[in-house]
Amino acid sequence: GTVDKGVDFANYFCTYAFLYHQKEMLSDRVRMDAYYDAIFKNKQHFAGKVVLDVGTGSGILAIWSAQAGARKVYAVEATKMAQHAKALVQANDVQDVVEVIEGSMEEINLPEKVDVIISEWMGYFLLRESMFDSVICARDRWLKPTGVLYPSHARMWMAPVRSGLGDQKMTDFEAAMTDWYNFVVDTENNYGVNMNVLTKSYREEHEKYYLKTSLWNNIHPSQIIGTSAVIKEIDCLTATVDDIRNVTAKFSLPIHVDRSRLSAFAGWFDVQFRGSMENPAENEIELTTAPSIENSTHWGQQVFLVHPPLRVNEGDEVIVDLSMSRSKDNHRLMDVNITYELQLSSGKHLKPTSTKYFIE
Amino acid sequence: GTVDKGVDFANYFCTYAFLYHQKEMLSDRVRMDAYYDAIFKNKQHFAGKVVLDVGTGSGILAIWSAQAGARKVYAVEATKMAQHAKALVQANDVQDVVEVIEGSMEEINLPEKVDVIISEWMGYFLLRESMFDSVICARDRWLKPTGVLYPSHARMWMAPVRSGLGDQKMTDFEAAMTDWYNFVVDTENNYGVNMNVLTKSYREEHEKYYLKTSLWNNIHPSQIIGTSAVIKEIDCLTATVDDIRNVTAKFSLPIHVDRSRLSAFAGWFDVQFRGSMENPAENEIELTTAPSIENSTHWGQQVFLVHPPLRVNEGDEVIVDLSMSRSKDNHRLMDVNITYELQLSSGKHLKPTSTKYFIE
Ligand SMILES: Nc1ncnc2c1ncn2[C@@H]1O[C@H](CSCC[C@H](N)C(=O)O)[C@@H](O)[C@H]1O
Ligand SMILES: Nc1ncnc2c1ncn2[C@@H]1O[C@H](CSCC[C@H](N)C(=O)O)[C@@H](O)[C@H]1O
Repeated sequence: GTVDKGVDFANYFCTYAFLYHQKEMLSDRVRMDAYYDAIFKNKQHFAGKVVLDVGTGSGILAIWSAQAGARKVYAVEATKMAQHAKALVQANDVQDVVEVIEGSMEEINLPEKVDVIISEWMGYFLLRESMFDSVICARDRWLKPTGVLYPSHARMWMAPVRSGLGDQKMTDFEAAMTDWYNFVVDTENNYGVNMNVLTKSYREEHEKYYLKTSLWNNIHPSQIIGTSAVIKEIDCLTATVDDIRNVTAKFSLPIHVDRSRLSAFAGWFDVQFRGSMENPAENEIELTTAPSIENSTHWGQQVFLVHPPLRVNEGDEVIVDLSMSRSKDNHRLMDVNITYELQLSSGKHLKPTSTKYFIE
Repeated sequence: GTVDKGVDFANYFCTYAFLYHQKEMLSDRVRMDAYYDAIFKNKQHFAGKVVLDVGTGSGILAIWSAQAGARKVYAVEATKMAQHAKALVQANDVQDVVEVIEGSMEEINLPEKVDVIISEWMGYFLLRESMFDSVICARDRWLKPTGVLYPSHARMWMAPVRSGLGDQKMTDFEAAMTDWYNFVVDTENNYGVNMNVLTKSYREEHEKYYLKTSLWNNIHPSQIIGTSAVIKEIDCLTATVDDIRNVTAKFSLPIHVDRSRLSAFAGWFDVQFRGSMENPAENEIELTTAPSIENSTHWGQQVFLVHPPLRVNEGDEVIVDLSMSRSKDNHRLMDVNITYELQLSSGKHLKPTSTKYFIE
């Protein structure tokens, strides 16, 4: 469907207009190091070239591209942050190379085609925000046939984890319901209106909020109780919006910890900077948002709670059927259906459970 | 200007579609008691009458109106909450009287004029949300010439207060700036980009957030250090949108506590249910959101911080010049300019300070 631009600004772009939010990204060392290395360890891709930075934000990637020797950098930003990017470009003395364009990628025009498109478009669990659509649009309109994309590849991952988050959320949910029941009694007694007919809807609303909305968390690697699976691979140079609009995957997660508890699935992503087949990077760089002790990112992982948790043992396998699509009301948010079924090491299958989750 | 409906839903109505939020209002005893008493202690205004509930939410006021004997109640609600209101009306057996209409007040049609318009339209500091516009629109289109409004009157108040909130926010602000300075150094050292040109904008963004955005707080009555002033009175039966679009007031706040500190202005409102001149209420009811120990409300008060705080003594007066208008970007939020000047009991005037605040 078509998207109302004003609504998209109110729901999405607005946050990027704050320096506070840009600074959060600029303070993510793992993210910054990856892009910095991708550019400066592959200067041959930038030196003398024309670069397009899709969603330049503060302008950081455009400035680095210029410092790496780009002949020209078009830095496109939809929000008022473009004004700050302009100031930053000037202050760092690359104004002869970097041209900041305030406007949405889909609507602006460039005077020429480009050799490189660089962009930091990744949202939670890779696809939240649906910003890769804008990169695809830019690529199809402005990238030379020989051009390269930074990053060039992306993958989505999922792992079985144990976590206390679910118990916590369950406690919160139950407290909210107890509170509701008291409210129903009080409202009847004090104000003569029986609210009980809304109990079911109240429960649904709160189940969604507490239990079915994925949680942001930086999982400790030791919480992973099985083998992680790649559930989606994207070649940025060829992927279409249709390829990413719906993600479906069937995969198995072998458990490798004994007497454990599967209380959640954790989802994350990584991206690679490999250049293209004809024009490979000299030094391949990877940015991963996998659970890590020292190298966690502002993306963390998305945690999908399993209720009730499953007892699992080494040798068991969790068979998962996942399908993710865009939320009807907001194309930048995701609905995720996960059906999971435990296959015991004995060969016995427990009956499958299906849950609809929301990435909000 | 005109307002994009989708944007208005994304920014404003969306919250009202949650039972969670309706419950918060339905759990506000002071609010509930006032409307309950206003209706049931003035049954003559409802018995046999046609009532319009502007923004019925859960349907509570419509159901009470029916229980008080209304012949017909039109209950208009813009959000999906209308579905829950329908269920509640049915469950409380007033479906023959209450007709829930899902739609915005400005757009729907009624088959007849009404005797009473009831609405709970008040936002923080009365006018935030600008929902009274919808009541005015309903009144001008649908209220009989002899009709009454519930509530009938409203007032805005302001008082000089002492509070530790400002010190807290100042500490937070300073911590944010220290963090920024470190970030600037780190970014230059690690990534070769000098961010210092953005320092001024970062400070402005954070001053707005920490110091110039009014705070929700339930002030303790003992924090009030002077006489409160009424800064605006509204007769709901005659007020026009032009009357409320801009609020300007000049007033004096006599200090009555010695050796104190003026660290904020607190703003709140009250509304009265008096019926109309020709058709007065038998029992006048008032709903006040003034600072209170036992009767605080979910509205609390809006706190506008004074930086730096002023030393004040009994006999001093704070002369205030206030002007409030709608925010350019969102007509439901407010910009408030407050100019204050201390007139010492000695007759000496300190030089005035002007601050632009934001009700977000
Ligand atoms: N279609 C579009 N057109 C222009 N800018 C867009 C866009 N979609 C997203 N953006 C912008 O893209 C930015 C993504 S965040 C990344 C910012 C910056 N490149 C950095 O790496 O630090 C945001 O500032 C957002 O406003
Ligand atoms: N123009 C408009 N048309 C229809 N509903 C509106 C409206 N402006 C606000 N509302 C609705 O008015 C409600 C205000 S909150 C009050 C709800 C209820 N009357 C109660 O007293 O508990 C919200 O549910 C909001 O969605």
